[in-house]
Amino acid sequence: MVPRYSRPDMVAIWTPEARFKIWFEIEAHATDALAELGVVPKEAAAAIWEKGAFEVDRIDEIERETKHDVIAFLTNVAEHVGPEARFMHQGMTSSDVLDTCLAVQLAKASDILIADLDALLVVLERRAREHKMTPTIGRSHGIHAEPVTFGLKLAQAHAEFARNRARLVAAREDVATCAISGAVGTFANIDPFVEEYVAGKLGLSVEPVSTQVIPRDRHAMFFATLGVIASSIERLATEVRHLQRTEVLEVEEFFSPGQKGSSAMPHKRNPVLTENLTGLARMVRGYVTPAMENVALWHERDISHSSVERYIGPDATITLDFALARLTGVMDKLVVYPERMLKNLNKMGGLVHSQRVLLALTQAGVSREDAYRLVQRNAMKVWDSDGALSLLELLKADPEVTLSDAELEDKFDLGYHLKHVDTIFTRVFGAA
Amino acid sequence: MVPRYSRPDMVAIWTPEARFKIWFEIEAHATDALAELGVVPKEAAAAIWEKGAFEVDRIDEIERETKHDVIAFLTNVAEHVGPEARFMHQGMTSSDVLDTCLAVQLAKASDILIADLDALLVVLERRAREHKMTPTIGRSHGIHAEPVTFGLKLAQAHAEFARNRARLVAAREDVATCAISGAVGTFANIDPFVEEYVAGKLGLSVEPVSTQVIPRDRHAMFFATLGVIASSIERLATEVRHLQRTEVLEVEEFFSPGQKGSSAMPHKRNPVLTENLTGLARMVRGYVTPAMENVALWHERDISHSSVERYIGPDATITLDFALARLTGVMDKLVVYPERMLKNLNKMGGLVHSQRVLLALTQAGVSREDAYRLVQRNAMKVWDSDGALSLLELLKADPEVTLSDAELEDKFDLGYHLKHVDTIFTRVFGAA
Amino acid sequence: MVPRYSRPDMVAIWTPEARFKIWFEIEAHATDALAELGVVPKEAAAAIWEKGAFEVDRIDEIERETKHDVIAFLTNVAEHVGPEARFMHQGMTSSDVLDTCLAVQLAKASDILIADLDALLVVLERRAREHKMTPTIGRSHGIHAEPVTFGLKLAQAHAEFARNRARLVAAREDVATCAISGAVGTFANIDPFVEEYVAGKLGLSVEPVSTQVIPRDRHAMFFATLGVIASSIERLATEVRHLQRTEVLEVEEFFSPGQKGSSAMPHKRNPVLTENLTGLARMVRGYVTPAMENVALWHERDISHSSVERYIGPDATITLDFALARLTGVMDKLVVYPERMLKNLNKMGGLVHSQRVLLALTQAGVSREDAYRLVQRNAMKVWDSDGALSLLELLKADPEVTLSDAELEDKFDLGYHLKHVDTIFTRVFGAA
Amino acid sequence: MVPRYSRPDMVAIWTPEARFKIWFEIEAHATDALAELGVVPKEAAAAIWEKGAFEVDRIDEIERETKHDVIAFLTNVAEHVGPEARFMHQGMTSSDVLDTCLAVQLAKASDILIADLDALLVVLERRAREHKMTPTIGRSHGIHAEPVTFGLKLAQAHAEFARNRARLVAAREDVATCAISGAVGTFANIDPFVEEYVAGKLGLSVEPVSTQVIPRDRHAMFFATLGVIASSIERLATEVRHLQRTEVLEVEEFFSPGQKGSSAMPHKRNPVLTENLTGLARMVRGYVTPAMENVALWHERDISHSSVERYIGPDATITLDFALARLTGVMDKLVVYPERMLKNLNKMGGLVHSQRVLLALTQAGVSREDAYRLVQRNAMKVWDSDGALSLLELLKADPEVTLSDAELEDKFDLGYHLKHVDTIFTRVFGAA
Repeated sequence: MVPRYSRPDMVAIWTPEARFKIWFEIEAHATDALAELGVVPKEAAAAIWEKGAFEVDRIDEIERETKHDVIAFLTNVAEHVGPEARFMHQGMTSSDVLDTCLAVQLAKASDILIADLDALLVVLERRAREHKMTPTIGRSHGIHAEPVTFGLKLAQAHAEFARNRARLVAAREDVATCAISGAVGTFANIDPFVEEYVAGKLGLSVEPVSTQVIPRDRHAMFFATLGVIASSIERLATEVRHLQRTEVLEVEEFFSPGQKGSSAMPHKRNPVLTENLTGLARMVRGYVTPAMENVALWHERDISHSSVERYIGPDATITLDFALARLTGVMDKLVVYPERMLKNLNKMGGLVHSQRVLLALTQAGVSREDAYRLVQRNAMKVWDSDGALSLLELLKADPEVTLSDAELEDKFDLGYHLKHVDTIFTRVFGAA
Repeated sequence: MVPRYSRPDMVAIWTPEARFKIWFEIEAHATDALAELGVVPKEAAAAIWEKGAFEVDRIDEIERETKHDVIAFLTNVAEHVGPEARFMHQGMTSSDVLDTCLAVQLAKASDILIADLDALLVVLERRAREHKMTPTIGRSHGIHAEPVTFGLKLAQAHAEFARNRARLVAAREDVATCAISGAVGTFANIDPFVEEYVAGKLGLSVEPVSTQVIPRDRHAMFFATLGVIASSIERLATEVRHLQRTEVLEVEEFFSPGQKGSSAMPHKRNPVLTENLTGLARMVRGYVTPAMENVALWHERDISHSSVERYIGPDATITLDFALARLTGVMDKLVVYPERMLKNLNKMGGLVHSQRVLLALTQAGVSREDAYRLVQRNAMKVWDSDGALSLLELLKADPEVTLSDAELEDKFDLGYHLKHVDTIFTRVFGAA
Repeated sequence: MVPRYSRPDMVAIWTPEARFKIWFEIEAHATDALAELGVVPKEAAAAIWEKGAFEVDRIDEIERETKHDVIAFLTNVAEHVGPEARFMHQGMTSSDVLDTCLAVQLAKASDILIADLDALLVVLERRAREHKMTPTIGRSHGIHAEPVTFGLKLAQAHAEFARNRARLVAAREDVATCAISGAVGTFANIDPFVEEYVAGKLGLSVEPVSTQVIPRDRHAMFFATLGVIASSIERLATEVRHLQRTEVLEVEEFFSPGQKGSSAMPHKRNPVLTENLTGLARMVRGYVTPAMENVALWHERDISHSSVERYIGPDATITLDFALARLTGVMDKLVVYPERMLKNLNKMGGLVHSQRVLLALTQAGVSREDAYRLVQRNAMKVWDSDGALSLLELLKADPEVTLSDAELEDKFDLGYHLKHVDTIFTRVFGAA
Repeated sequence: MVPRYSRPDMVAIWTPEARFKIWFEIEAHATDALAELGVVPKEAAAAIWEKGAFEVDRIDEIERETKHDVIAFLTNVAEHVGPEARFMHQGMTSSDVLDTCLAVQLAKASDILIADLDALLVVLERRAREHKMTPTIGRSHGIHAEPVTFGLKLAQAHAEFARNRARLVAAREDVATCAISGAVGTFANIDPFVEEYVAGKLGLSVEPVSTQVIPRDRHAMFFATLGVIASSIERLATEVRHLQRTEVLEVEEFFSPGQKGSSAMPHKRNPVLTENLTGLARMVRGYVTPAMENVALWHERDISHSSVERYIGPDATITLDFALARLTGVMDKLVVYPERMLKNLNKMGGLVHSQRVLLALTQAGVSREDAYRLVQRNAMKVWDSDGALSLLELLKADPEVTLSDAELEDKFDLGYHLKHVDTIFTRVFGAA
């Protein structure tokens, strides 16, 4: 965890206090279920809720001796509850507590991330609608292609993050299971009712078959999903970085008054937030492979996954939470320069309309190859002039180009390219 | 692609012939749609279906000159169709063809992989039921824990691969979209109807908003899902490898009569298939990060994803198909040694029953700490004797252990551990 | 292996013929050594060289039955050599052959890659010297910073690839070892002399301690080094892609006359080669983690590494060879536009000189904070004018700026920035 | 950073205090160099050393406003130094400080890691010599192969970590460079002498050509090297885990008296340290790809690498330091059971000697195929008997086996396998 890339709500999920609190709830609910089954006295179950307490420092102290965290926790709780504490954890194994706790934490983390995505989607839709008809040049290979609108770029981002939201909901479901099945998952010493009871109380589903541990394919899928979301963040961040470069300058990250861009070059306003997001995306992606390597635990379990999860549980969720919030802020306050977009769009002397001319020529009976040749030879002149020459004028003057001036002019109409923006907005937002 | 790790049906999806055939279908369906819109003559659309043909070698030849594969393809098809070929590809861009083709290929590959998973699930269920009540020792940390059944191990694998199947179905849906939206995704030169029409003909859904290309978050999710499945393969393969090791030898890969295990040691029967699967899993996982790095294409697209997909499209699907089929074969023919399982289970002198004794002592009023101490001191003697001493006898002889001989004997009953196998089988298979 | 990203010399290393030829040499040299030791008859060793032959198809046929490649090979060779073939492979194990063969292949592959790097370094030096004093704007965060020369950019690339060359030489040394130590590396059945003899003949060093296999940390380091080189390729490719984008257009990949840039937009000249290199870099990097996962083989060896190496041995070296050659071609023929570079450099109205003014002000006694404020307020005006205003003129007109006009003009001298180019060239190339 | 996987010396390198202290030294040394050049007054340089100070909290406070860490630092230092502070940082850019600081930190971290490796190598050599002639079974594919000694296993580990030490020394050299070259690396506003001076003071080499930043291929190589070392840790950890499993039990991690192995199964002694190391290795490997993705910064630099390095700089070095120390502890105190090793070795009824018999038969004139068949048919009987039958007796009784009883008995001599242990020890340790 890097403090500057952390937000308090997500951090709070991963504190020792929060973890032990979930442990306590699991143990207490489980004891309730055991009491309901008649395995332990109801008074014992009640006593745990009433007198149960723990201190992080004390648990740490005991763990230093026993080298076992759950035993340390239980010992500390027993110091508060008294002799009735012996009815806690009956028939359970440490992983019942640890894995179910991790499920609760990942479910909570998912809820924050889903809310982050919702906030981002709101901003993306607002900015998309704001710039629904703001023309800008579409670029493939970094080269001017044909006009789009800035709103379309944002609608694309919206659709992508809406998919990511659906993926995260599925990943949350995958990972939010409760296992209380004993030392090797056979319920030898604990009735399956306890698992069902605790699952219900904690809002988890029941793990159908566990082997002391909840199978790690679930977690691998979860972290892989975070990696995909991070990659989408990188995509939008890269778009902003490109659009802010000096020669393009169609958008800028909001630059607050006191902020300094460079210790040496005072004029610089750098897209540092989106560059930062690019780096954060690399980190979240970097956690995917360790999560996948965690799947092949030995036999009914080994504990190699545990150290990995101590890193990536917090690091991946905290980093992604921060990144989503930062991206939302960037997009919310992004300074957009529509005039500059139009200026850039027009700077190539009308080259962006070349395909329409190509089509018109083929429709007028010219072979595809000839049409391509005719358009390209004029386009190349414009290209070489760095936009000083006008493609429209060159085409008018080319004797082999058989289209009339009016026909040619019609092909250079910007509105032509934007006629289906409504269609796409309806697809993405449900209504244009 | 490594030929020895390839199966013909999956390989067939990725041949140039197969690819160009899909291209042809996309172009021909699109021309039909254009004809329906009245944009091109119906005769032209019909001519394409009638006279359309291509030759891989000829396309390669043209591409060497033009350095553009779709133009080379169209040129070759035009050589067959004649002048009416100019109505093909009207208003389309290369990526409309390439990306929709990739969607078709990945959907077909998914269908094979889903069938692979189905075949594996059938085998796993059959073997699980066969060994539903075959006792074997459960191991955590590689150390004997408590009894399970071999059927439970397989039920766990079944549940895991059933999850993987559901994930793959979702990933297939994610990736099976059709984009025919023109140079920058605005439908400037082609009506959205064409996209809908072709999508319908090819069994794809419509890409709501594309940017010349289908967004690569879809593909990233797809390959990430394959990476998770590969990790599950590694898990089951690792289980077999462990169980086949000389000291354990509870199962063996089927060893065909002519097969030689070692050029030097003729007695050896090695788990080479599952070791091989372990390596193949690493490869499929290795393709996940490149797929994620493909997401952040520049602006409306760059072509950096293309070379990556030329590798991982075939390599990931062909390798995973092979691996799933190999795993199915391994599990289908796996030689299981129930006597050896029982022998191993019993070799630790009854230590595996220690937890039951611990519980019985606490229930008899002994404090958790004392009970732990009592059991551990006797267990350690058994442990140090390498199974020569019997835990049951030692406990009977320990004066501090207040349980009667009958009570103690009851705690050493194997059936006790297997009483919920039915419950778990019902969860996994719907019926015990 | 993707044929279009493959070059024949590297491919030739990885054919079955090449592999079996190396096997044969290992076996024949080893038999010579055994003969020298008097373990086998000298006539037998001679017979192997004289009559030894193999056929790939026949080996495949035998392997289908025996499921063991080295036994299949030996059987086939024995069909040619006759009874004396029984003296081959005496005391050896399959891995002695396989691993030593892989060492030879990786050494040969390294030699090609080192030659590739040498060719690239020659081109980079030539182009660097050609553009040693071609001014161009340096950019940080994609924003104009201060002037550099295009030659400096290439000198940086040269220094980076020179480092990569040194790393590859080290990685080659790491991986080029010979192990002929028998079934578990103890030389139980074969004298260490054989290993030394064969190593000498093949130009390898002796593996000090092997465990049937050569330890895979060597290979992990090798493939990790390829991943670093690939990342450097991505860096230079990204630079070209940026410089070719429409708004920048300071360089272009060479565009051959017959080449078509886009099926739809005939004017487009896209940086497709460097985009392609970006994708290829992702692939080579993707092979690093599987190679690292190969290190932890079980006990004296398992065979999980083998399938991984069947992919990444050829794929990583073939892809990197192709990528280096492609990059060399791109840099060799790169079309450079010095006028455009100068035009871009000047377009921000002199903002790039702002730091010099800042320094002059502090040296004239203004506090750092005040100097920063003074420069920034004028710089912002220029920035907002999109280069229409001149920083020099604004500073002259600012009453708080205490520098004389002549002093200010001196700060806007381009030559000032290039005075240490010689120093840097001497560092990189040994002589300016 | 996960506190439980952290050691104080390495953590200390990455604290804000440590970082700012290095920044201060860089700035102060640079001002000395500037004074030596006559660019700034010598009194100013002296004043910085005398009065220079900083407070982490105050820097944070200023950074919250300026959003620029180096400016915040300089402002804070200026509060202590007074007006002469304006001579600091003359002609420098933030990255000159940041990147040179990172070089110092990584060099210091390397020194700790090299010391860690040295400590591990000492332990490995000691234990290797201790068990130089302790026979144990060598296993390939997890299956008994031929005898080795436990010392040989450790000698192999020693050789591997000695290679890793050499790699780390090279990686340290790669990364320990000083860049003070100004905003785009041209030394426009600062003489190269300053860079040389500061490099000398800090024990770094001069970066030959930088572009505001030190090129990130250096860091990629560094973190890749850590990834290889981590993979070697995983290998040795996996070996221990295998040897500790119940059925093998040839070694055990030291189990301190107060330690509890399982909350449920008091007899269990689990190899939790080496399992933990396996997980930590996954993490260190997971940082390699982000480091490689950092190489392709845009133009003269972007800042996407920075967030990545804020994670992996500390996380990779702290985790690896902890892992190396833990591994050293495990190996130092590893409990070894030579009797059990011998018992396991003998349990397969002499099968491990089968290859010697095979060789003897071929040397006696039997064809390779016949010898293989003869040995295998007897070996299979032993195998199927789970070691109850003796291969030696079966071979004596097999009429087709033409070797005399004495000849056969000779082939079952354990010492035969250990005769070259000295040779290998001399190779690894310089002396047997």
